[in-house]
Amino acid sequence: MRRLPLAKAFTLMESGPVVLVATHDGQKNNVMTISWTMVVDFTSTFAMTTGPWNHSYAALRKSRECVIAVPTVDLIDRVVGVGTCSGADTDKFERFGLTPLAATHVRAPLIRECLANIECKVIDIVEKHNIVVLEGVAAYRDASRKEKRTIHAVGDGTFIVDGERIDRRKMMRSKLPPGV
Amino acid sequence: MRRLPLAKAFTLMESGPVVLVATHDGQKNNVMTISWTMVVDFTSTFAMTTGPWNHSYAALRKSRECVIAVPTVDLIDRVVGVGTCSGADTDKFERFGLTPLAATHVRAPLIRECLANIECKVIDIVEKHNIVVLEGVAAYRDASRKEKRTIHAVGDGTFIVDGERIDRRKMMRSKLPPGV
Repeated sequence: MRRLPLAKAFTLMESGPVVLVATHDGQKNNVMTISWTMVVDFTSTFAMTTGPWNHSYAALRKSRECVIAVPTVDLIDRVVGVGTCSGADTDKFERFGLTPLAATHVRAPLIRECLANIECKVIDIVEKHNIVVLEGVAAYRDASRKEKRTIHAVGDGTFIVDGERIDRRKMMRSKLPPGV
Repeated sequence: MRRLPLAKAFTLMESGPVVLVATHDGQKNNVMTISWTMVVDFTSTFAMTTGPWNHSYAALRKSRECVIAVPTVDLIDRVVGVGTCSGADTDKFERFGLTPLAATHVRAPLIRECLANIECKVIDIVEKHNIVVLEGVAAYRDASRKEKRTIHAVGDGTFIVDGERIDRRKMMRSKLPPGV
């Protein structure tokens, strides 16, 4: 898991993959599956919709920290499993064979099995809309991993896997931020 | 372009496709390309990051309406084209051969060439984070279209096309909202 420049962290999220969000409530780790995220700024700012219906929300509010981990298609059943049980009665890291790794700036763990991880601080909670705004403070990517295809939840119980990649760098040049 | 129940509208957006956002400023149509969106609620509520750097933002603020149109991979060069010029000096519908269709509840047009369209009302603008919160008031999907693969911007000038679809409806049953 190598450091990725923060200026590139938004490229881990912009395509809209399902992510795992790891938290630490002061006593133990937990992890949830989240599909409702977006990039807010090129400088590693993200928004995520969550609220009291997720057990992890209390830890997120209290610690004001989390790790966004980006899983790939080989992890789909763990991702769905994490999303369909609760940290209130389950050690999800143990149950789903996920390996917590110590992060640098936050107590929430990185997840070894994932393609990428972003350590985040909560910079705001827009209560009215259940939108949590996060600032990425460190990012990592496992370039050695063979499977790099992420998954995108449709919302009806099906998931779309990354297919072919199309290059429009030349047409987009005027719009790309520095460092990408 | 057939009506889609509003309870399913979030399934058009949850996978994170690049979208076109059409507006009407009282005089003319405009359209922008947006990748920074997320679902906020199963009841057809969406968030989108935009701000004064987009010419369409003034129309969005003033009219408090827009249409989110979901393009497919065959439209990629029009999508990139729309995203790399400005409505300040370009009639983008004309330039990119996009056909505006009258919407039902908003003055912004649907886009005929797209796979799906969602008529939206602006319900809030979170100025601090440049997040616009939208409520979908009508949704449409062109089921007759052969090409249904949407595209996902990575943020570096490349785009990921929808690949295979994996069905986890059974595992997810407890989490799916009614009507999906």
